[in-house]
Amino acid sequence: MVIAHSGAVIALDVGGTKIAGALFDAHRHIIATTQVRTPASEGAPAVLEAMAGVVEELRARSNEAISGLGLGVAGVIDPVNAKVSSATDTISGWAGTDLRAELMARTSLEVRAVNDVHAHGLGEALRGAGRGAEEVLLFAVGTGIGGAHLVHGKLLTGVHHAAGHVGHIDSIDAAGLPCSCGQTGHVEAIASGPAIHRHYLRLGGDTRITDTKAVTALALAGDQRAHQALATGARAAGRAAASLANVLDPELVIVSGGMAGAGALWWNSLRQGFAESVIGPVAKTGIVAAELGNEAAFYGAASLFWPSTEKE
Amino acid sequence: MVIAHSGAVIALDVGGTKIAGALFDAHRHIIATTQVRTPASEGAPAVLEAMAGVVEELRARSNEAISGLGLGVAGVIDPVNAKVSSATDTISGWAGTDLRAELMARTSLEVRAVNDVHAHGLGEALRGAGRGAEEVLLFAVGTGIGGAHLVHGKLLTGVHHAAGHVGHIDSIDAAGLPCSCGQTGHVEAIASGPAIHRHYLRLGGDTRITDTKAVTALALAGDQRAHQALATGARAAGRAAASLANVLDPELVIVSGGMAGAGALWWNSLRQGFAESVIGPVAKTGIVAAELGNEAAFYGAASLFWPSTEKE
Repeated sequence: MVIAHSGAVIALDVGGTKIAGALFDAHRHIIATTQVRTPASEGAPAVLEAMAGVVEELRARSNEAISGLGLGVAGVIDPVNAKVSSATDTISGWAGTDLRAELMARTSLEVRAVNDVHAHGLGEALRGAGRGAEEVLLFAVGTGIGGAHLVHGKLLTGVHHAAGHVGHIDSIDAAGLPCSCGQTGHVEAIASGPAIHRHYLRLGGDTRITDTKAVTALALAGDQRAHQALATGARAAGRAAASLANVLDPELVIVSGGMAGAGALWWNSLRQGFAESVIGPVAKTGIVAAELGNEAAFYGAASLFWPSTEKE
Repeated sequence: MVIAHSGAVIALDVGGTKIAGALFDAHRHIIATTQVRTPASEGAPAVLEAMAGVVEELRARSNEAISGLGLGVAGVIDPVNAKVSSATDTISGWAGTDLRAELMARTSLEVRAVNDVHAHGLGEALRGAGRGAEEVLLFAVGTGIGGAHLVHGKLLTGVHHAAGHVGHIDSIDAAGLPCSCGQTGHVEAIASGPAIHRHYLRLGGDTRITDTKAVTALALAGDQRAHQALATGARAAGRAAASLANVLDPELVIVSGGMAGAGALWWNSLRQGFAESVIGPVAKTGIVAAELGNEAAFYGAASLFWPSTEKE
């Protein structure tokens, strides 16, 4: 396949803790990456400066002119105007930031942006586990639970650009549990990484165990409480993915995020939950692991400068 | 607005109990309707004959030549080929029926088809409560719970044409309850009309009360069990609609189906459930009543012959 020459592109993945960047050559290969800490508490101007710094570092490593700056950014992002429509206070003063104007002023590059989870989904759909699939649902289970729905390579972002909050659907196992969004009963409250740790403690687990990685290790070692917390979270995630498959009927559900690396117990429970809630007509929907890891968001952000005909 | 002259169209809404038909003139107005009982137990050929009979009756009432036959049909319908991909046994031998070939042979008309709930959603989105909205989620609560998701007037039907099974997402209030799909825990199992009646009986209600209409009447009269069954079902439906709004971020959720006619108690509980589960960025999503009633499916089925530019 001949790939159109659309120029070198810089892609940034901007979260509350780090700003990661990748330089793509005109053949759409990553040829350099870098990352810095997000100066989240110092406010939006400091974060924008840090982003511009990453761009300059990567630009210095390119033999070609850079044709665009693609961003995957935490918060609700208006992709038409490349603005932060709304955001939590993780980055102070982030809501309302005009990414296009601010970064064009600092880098002189054309700027396009989507939400970071949307960038992740776009990358996996186009270049990762979703290559060639018609419709893809990304279901990412990590510190939070987020996702993206793509139809023929096109991201569906919703009318407020807020689509993809797949962690905020009801879960029977989360009845009454407080969720990060301020409501209760959502799958994120039982199935995210931190939720699994909290559930372990609620089951009477050892309070010296302070993170999900340790809970996972205990579960593998045969600890009953850790096993139950991990299996309940994974099964709830699987049921939630099935609920959405029942509504969206995608070709593939791509599962990503930190918990997707938790091993066979987690995956078996996820698949069990999916099988327990999926309806007949969509029962054969594939559930597969993401392939690109942290690079997915780079591919998604860079793809904002790749001709859309090649996405379909 | 000048409406393109696309010719007269016959639309059928084909369910397990009745076949309803409408004749649209070239100005897209319904000028005649009729209906017959579905000979469901007699099998697919009898149903096809009955459909052809409705077409002939309506054709006889038209002054213009008929340019197409649009169908909204129970079951999973492949809209590209107008075939029944799969179906329950409500109509015996329905799965696999080639609607295009069978009805073209009987009527000599060009045939296009979608699922009946999809036709309903298409009609409401284009000509009913969704007129002018960019993205619409139809949420229909009746004997079952079904829906449709439309983006810029285009129905998203999924890769197996099975999208829109909004009744088959998990509900906290349905934990353990058997669902029509064979699984448990789905919102249809607590919020559909028959589910509300069953819940009333589970709460110790009067066994002489044999349907949901009677439960609704009792609730209005102040009966505590009936009130609780109706409010629980409506609230669960509202939470489910919010779950999907969190994922899809539509402009409007259009609520239809028999339960949408159950009155203020039902609607207040629905809105309460929605408010309890919706996340901030989509909290202002409109929840509105459908406008077209049973005519919605006619408009949706007929619209399959209306130029798609006018849907967007």
